[in-house]
Amino acid sequence: MSCGDFSVRLPEWLRSHANGDRVFETPEERMRLVIELSRLNVEHGVGGPFGAAVFDHSSNRLAAVGVNLVLSSNCSVLHAEVVAIMMAQKRWGHYDLGAQGMPPFQLVTSTEPCAMCLGAVAWSGVRALVCGARDEDARHIGFDEGPKSPRWVEDLESRGIRVIRDVCRSEATEVLEYYAESGGVIYNGRQGRPS
Amino acid sequence: MSCGDFSVRLPEWLRSHANGDRVFETPEERMRLVIELSRLNVEHGVGGPFGAAVFDHSSNRLAAVGVNLVLSSNCSVLHAEVVAIMMAQKRWGHYDLGAQGMPPFQLVTSTEPCAMCLGAVAWSGVRALVCGARDEDARHIGFDEGPKSPRWVEDLESRGIRVIRDVCRSEATEVLEYYAESGGVIYNGRQGRPS
Repeated sequence: MSCGDFSVRLPEWLRSHANGDRVFETPEERMRLVIELSRLNVEHGVGGPFGAAVFDHSSNRLAAVGVNLVLSSNCSVLHAEVVAIMMAQKRWGHYDLGAQGMPPFQLVTSTEPCAMCLGAVAWSGVRALVCGARDEDARHIGFDEGPKSPRWVEDLESRGIRVIRDVCRSEATEVLEYYAESGGVIYNGRQGRPS
Repeated sequence: MSCGDFSVRLPEWLRSHANGDRVFETPEERMRLVIELSRLNVEHGVGGPFGAAVFDHSSNRLAAVGVNLVLSSNCSVLHAEVVAIMMAQKRWGHYDLGAQGMPPFQLVTSTEPCAMCLGAVAWSGVRALVCGARDEDARHIGFDEGPKSPRWVEDLESRGIRVIRDVCRSEATEVLEYYAESGGVIYNGRQGRPS
C-alpha cells in the first residue's frame, strides 16, 4: 500500500484570485467574489459549482479561497468550504482560526454548507458564516446535502458562530442552475444507491 | 497571499501500519487495529485519540489508514475518518468508493463520527461504518461532537450505509480516557467560547 500523503492544490486560475489581500467592504462584495469563483470553477471544468473564501473581518481583507475540487482531485472531502478552511489555517499556522490573538474571521460560501461542511465550519474557528444560495437550491439541482442537523443555524450560533443567509441568493443560484443545465456531474456518494 | 497548496502526510510510524494489504477477518480485529492506531497517535504526540481505517470488505484487506492530525498539521479538518477517506480515494483513484466496479468498502473508526465526519462518511462511498466508542464517550472527556443530526444512524442507513456500533467500545473508550488523563489538548473550535 503506497499512499501516505495527499496534496491539495488550488488550480492556477484560482491562485491569481487568492493573491493580494484585497479588501471587500460589504457582505455583497465578498459574496460576489465567491459566486464568481463558483462560476469560474464550472467554466474551467474543475468541479462542482461552489466557491468559498475566508476574510479577516477586522480589515475585510481576503484571507483564503477555496472551490470544490471533488472531481479534479478525486476526493469527496474537498468541498469549497473545506478547501478554504484548510488554506486559511495553513496561512495562519493554527487549527483554530478563533484562537487567542487571531483577528475575527468570516467564511463566505456561495451555497449553504452540506452536513460535512457544517461540521467543518464548527471546528474551523471562524466567527461568522455568510451564505448565498440555500441548501434547498442545491437540492433542487440534485445535490444531496447530507445528514444535516435541521437545527444547524441554531447549532452554529450556540457555538458563537453568527449565520447570515440569503446574501445575493439569486445570483448564487444562477450558477447552480448553469451547472445543471451544462450537464455538470451531480456526484453524491454512491449516487444515492441503496446497498 | 502565498497559500495555494496543502499537504496531508501520514506520520512515519503510521506508514508502516499502512503497508501490506493485511487481512483482518472480523470486525473486532479491524476495530483493534484502529484502537491501536488511536493509542499510538497519543503516544507519539501527533494529535487526538482517534484512529480509522478503510477495508475492502470483499477480501477483508486493509485499504487505507488515518489518524487525527489536527494538532500536528494545524488543520481542524484532519480527523481520522477524513484522513482515511482521503487516502483510500487516492489509492483507488476515485472520489466515490461506491462507484461501479469498486469492491464494497467499510470504514472502521475508533469513535463514532463527529458532525463533520458523519457528512464525510456519507460522501465517501463506503457501504458500512463500524464504530467503537460512542460519541457520548468523546463528549465525556470534553470533545464537542458538533452540530450532528440526532437521526444520524438512520440518515446513513437511508443512504445505503450500514452502521455497526459498540464494537470493542470499552477498549476504544480506554484510549479516550488515557488521552484525557495524560493532559491531551481538547481542541474544540474556539474552545466553545461565545462570540
